[in-house]
Amino acid sequence: MTTADNLFTLREKMAAHNVDALILPTSDFHDTEYVCEYFGARKHFSGFTGSAGVLVVLKDKAGLWTDGRYFIQAGREIEGSGIDLMKMGQPGVPTIEAYLQENLADGATLAFDGRCVSMEAFEGYRDSLNDKNVTIVTDLDLAGEAWPDRPALPASRTFHYPEKYNGESVASKLARVREAMKEAGAKHHITTKVDEIAWLFNLRANDIPNFPVALAYAIVNEEDGVLYIDESRLDEESAKLLAESGIKTAPYNQIYDDIEALEGPVMMEKDYVNSRIGRAIKDAIWMTNPIQLMKACKNAVEVENAREAHKRDAVAVIRFWKWLDEQLEADNEVTEISAAEKLHEFRGQMPDFLEDSFETISAYHANASMPHYHPDRENPVRIEKKGMHLVDSGGKYMQGKTDITRTFVTGEMTEEERIAFTRVLQGHIDLAKAVFMEGARGMNLDILCRQYLWQDGRDYNHGTGHGVGALSNVHEGPNGFRWKVVPERKDSCVLEPGMITSDEPGLYVEGKYGIRHENMIVVVPAFETEFGNFLRHDVLTLVPFDVRGLDLNLMHQDQIDWLNDYHQQVYDEIAPRLSEDEAAWLYERTRPVHQD
Amino acid sequence: MTTADNLFTLREKMAAHNVDALILPTSDFHDTEYVCEYFGARKHFSGFTGSAGVLVVLKDKAGLWTDGRYFIQAGREIEGSGIDLMKMGQPGVPTIEAYLQENLADGATLAFDGRCVSMEAFEGYRDSLNDKNVTIVTDLDLAGEAWPDRPALPASRTFHYPEKYNGESVASKLARVREAMKEAGAKHHITTKVDEIAWLFNLRANDIPNFPVALAYAIVNEEDGVLYIDESRLDEESAKLLAESGIKTAPYNQIYDDIEALEGPVMMEKDYVNSRIGRAIKDAIWMTNPIQLMKACKNAVEVENAREAHKRDAVAVIRFWKWLDEQLEADNEVTEISAAEKLHEFRGQMPDFLEDSFETISAYHANASMPHYHPDRENPVRIEKKGMHLVDSGGKYMQGKTDITRTFVTGEMTEEERIAFTRVLQGHIDLAKAVFMEGARGMNLDILCRQYLWQDGRDYNHGTGHGVGALSNVHEGPNGFRWKVVPERKDSCVLEPGMITSDEPGLYVEGKYGIRHENMIVVVPAFETEFGNFLRHDVLTLVPFDVRGLDLNLMHQDQIDWLNDYHQQVYDEIAPRLSEDEAAWLYERTRPVHQD
Repeated sequence: MTTADNLFTLREKMAAHNVDALILPTSDFHDTEYVCEYFGARKHFSGFTGSAGVLVVLKDKAGLWTDGRYFIQAGREIEGSGIDLMKMGQPGVPTIEAYLQENLADGATLAFDGRCVSMEAFEGYRDSLNDKNVTIVTDLDLAGEAWPDRPALPASRTFHYPEKYNGESVASKLARVREAMKEAGAKHHITTKVDEIAWLFNLRANDIPNFPVALAYAIVNEEDGVLYIDESRLDEESAKLLAESGIKTAPYNQIYDDIEALEGPVMMEKDYVNSRIGRAIKDAIWMTNPIQLMKACKNAVEVENAREAHKRDAVAVIRFWKWLDEQLEADNEVTEISAAEKLHEFRGQMPDFLEDSFETISAYHANASMPHYHPDRENPVRIEKKGMHLVDSGGKYMQGKTDITRTFVTGEMTEEERIAFTRVLQGHIDLAKAVFMEGARGMNLDILCRQYLWQDGRDYNHGTGHGVGALSNVHEGPNGFRWKVVPERKDSCVLEPGMITSDEPGLYVEGKYGIRHENMIVVVPAFETEFGNFLRHDVLTLVPFDVRGLDLNLMHQDQIDWLNDYHQQVYDEIAPRLSEDEAAWLYERTRPVHQD
Repeated sequence: MTTADNLFTLREKMAAHNVDALILPTSDFHDTEYVCEYFGARKHFSGFTGSAGVLVVLKDKAGLWTDGRYFIQAGREIEGSGIDLMKMGQPGVPTIEAYLQENLADGATLAFDGRCVSMEAFEGYRDSLNDKNVTIVTDLDLAGEAWPDRPALPASRTFHYPEKYNGESVASKLARVREAMKEAGAKHHITTKVDEIAWLFNLRANDIPNFPVALAYAIVNEEDGVLYIDESRLDEESAKLLAESGIKTAPYNQIYDDIEALEGPVMMEKDYVNSRIGRAIKDAIWMTNPIQLMKACKNAVEVENAREAHKRDAVAVIRFWKWLDEQLEADNEVTEISAAEKLHEFRGQMPDFLEDSFETISAYHANASMPHYHPDRENPVRIEKKGMHLVDSGGKYMQGKTDITRTFVTGEMTEEERIAFTRVLQGHIDLAKAVFMEGARGMNLDILCRQYLWQDGRDYNHGTGHGVGALSNVHEGPNGFRWKVVPERKDSCVLEPGMITSDEPGLYVEGKYGIRHENMIVVVPAFETEFGNFLRHDVLTLVPFDVRGLDLNLMHQDQIDWLNDYHQQVYDEIAPRLSEDEAAWLYERTRPVHQD
């Protein structure tokens, strides 16, 4: 079956239901960042395999909206399908709303699965088509009807995530959520984000690759609550704990019946709750889900576990680096693919390793100038003894998740590369060592990271850092580092102790090279003085930076001091976990450096 | 007459009009930062002489709300008046709204002069008293009735501010305002801010000390407009120019009659337009006054004139510093007062000098720990050969306004003072030399100034910088440097070329010392690269910093380089304007410095 065949079948179903336009977003029922195969309708009906995009199908035309990362790939993948590529943000390219405005006749019918579109997005479509008398149908699953071999919904077995890792009982978490409900005057609290449910019930599963959670919904009431998940999936311990906590379970889809019967005000978050649920609630209190902040501020046990996860991960990454160095030295062939596999192998040897945090970015030379590059398995690129090799990867351990980027120097560098490598690290260090007053946000600190690049008229076109969950999502709000506030990102909150964020400035020069230096850092108290309360960051990641890439004379002495102290810490904490050979190698890589 | 007598008279008038509560803010009809004596009702009826505060008078009690700067002074000044001091922001102190809620009976009558309360503030009072059925009377001037010897409204003669200084004709400005009206769909544009009117009509006067503007209102229509100012006050050139521009004049108060007859949508800014006007307009378009941004982005002629004003001012300040050094050397008595007077004298010798920008802050030693300190004429404090003397002052020239703070080292310093002096200057320099991408705001840059203090657990409790007008207000929006956004300050806009802002970090340790280093800086393009457009600042102020206060070993080499380059520039640009003697002295003060 070709994409054209699939589209033909889809249009037959649309016609059968008198639907003039169909929207297929890249989304599950929970607005999850990554979706499993069941939610691959956009991919199935367009042929486009990227991680972000929206397909809009009309009777006689169709458009695929995607962003700059995917213009080339999407163009190639949808070629011949009759779908137009809509390059988001490019001049002259209409928004989906404008496209529908333009192409729908008065009184037409627009359909999408209301479970895959947030309440916020639903209102956007509704309001923009207000004057066209368009009917919006949200209770049809046309993609399902037209997709006979659709993969099943995932139903992995859950596992209890014990308090020795997360440090807070379900009872305590429920009490805090109910406190927030009381403050807001809510009788019920609907949570549909899978990471928030995982946090609340100390429950994990493997429904989504790299994202250890279960597809589920939850309603917390004043005295009890319901977790919507098929009971057969529940591990014994979780089932017992839920029962003890007064939380019933009910089948996954039963929430759509149950919400009809809810009485009294219901707390929900408009950006995340799906519109099938949002529209069914009469007495809604729209507000940020209080779990978001509770989850972001890791407690002492979570931070301790995160430190341990990063130590284990450091051992694996250091072993990988030593191996890479040796292979290059011996002129053995190493490719982007074989490097990524070797790194995965080293991680796999660490106790409590579960899986990679995400698909490893292993990018040699000019390939690294694409920040979201993934190596091509068909045509593996060899890593040469020249320039740099960028590896952005992470490991998921019972103790927590890691996310680390190192740019390894594999041979001779140009002067331009060396300056760039240094400028990016200077910014990284200034952010890592910053002390800031209580009340500061990521947008206040971001310039510390960019200042040296900006001085040279250079910049990186991504945020400086994202929040990271504790054995949960690798991109987590509400903390982050970003200089321009992007409201829908929701990552500009006031920084609070326990928040874990990445510190990952970079520099990407098309066709030439890409550099990124990434550590995880956690907010800790600095000191309290007559002037107020001050915070700072502790670094969690414990892997040396490749000092062979630095022009030390460009750096401030306090940056060099920080680097030497950090490398000393890396050696002290990681060497005891290494073989004698490995420790000797690490000793060389963590020797203090100094200016000429 | 005592304050108690004045209050008694006021309450008689309140009773005669059946008013239960009266609000007397510190404001004129134009929401001007500084008010003239005519608007001194709060001072007259409370005895409190500070620059900010609100008096609320009930039948049997009264309260004066003021901020932290004035707690001690206000307490002293209102003692015995029967007025309670309401320390704003302190725990347990009600807001004015809460106080009225608490103390007004159902159906009571609240009065204030609607011309002295902005539309935004009016709505705040109205909404907070909504459920008490309170009548709000805004067309009575009870303070006027109860204040027989009230000073007259100022009516200084206007003067035309020529294009050689401001670089844009009234016709061009009117065209730009009308363009903005068209975009907003407005038929009329009411401007009540005196600095915006001064800008629009290239008109100045001396109605308010240190603030060269006329009290006036303006309405711009699609084809013509009206300036509300008593015609007899107008200088010939301005009168001619207004007539040529199709702008009629009408008596100051006639606007209140004319607005009743306006037809079609009217553009106004809710935070600034007074509520007597705001409420009279039926079809209001509430938006930021477009003049604000036009006025803030100085054109090339204005920037050139600002440079010239700062050069003249530099000559005066350098002469003052040389004089101060010599007096101290000779053991002559210099006091905070005599120093301020001498500085004024030197400024007065400069061509085109008009008056001081504001009352000079001349603060020796521990007095400087109060950022808003003003020297006491009755008990002049002698400047000793020990520690530091802080002078925050400015000059108003036809070419523009200056605002400069130097902290002069008058003798031996403690190690703590030296570190503080250095930390503040490091921040000052990092902000001054920052390069930033188009789109950056003050809140992105602010940390560059605070970072070295924060590292030491120290901070200054004020913004890092305020916008400065061109021969206009010394505090001007919408630009500024501040790390926490304060929405009502309206100083967090995106930085654009031509914006002039102060760079004035400080450090204040109660009872010990105060330090502030302040220059004016103007946004200029830096470069355009493949990564985007970059901006930076040029420094306008040209007076050396007192390097005797520095611990150079704490500084980065690039900060020392900046300082040496700046001092070289000061010498090159100012020395030719000085006598040989003075130039020789400046040469010594601008010699390059270096670390041990």
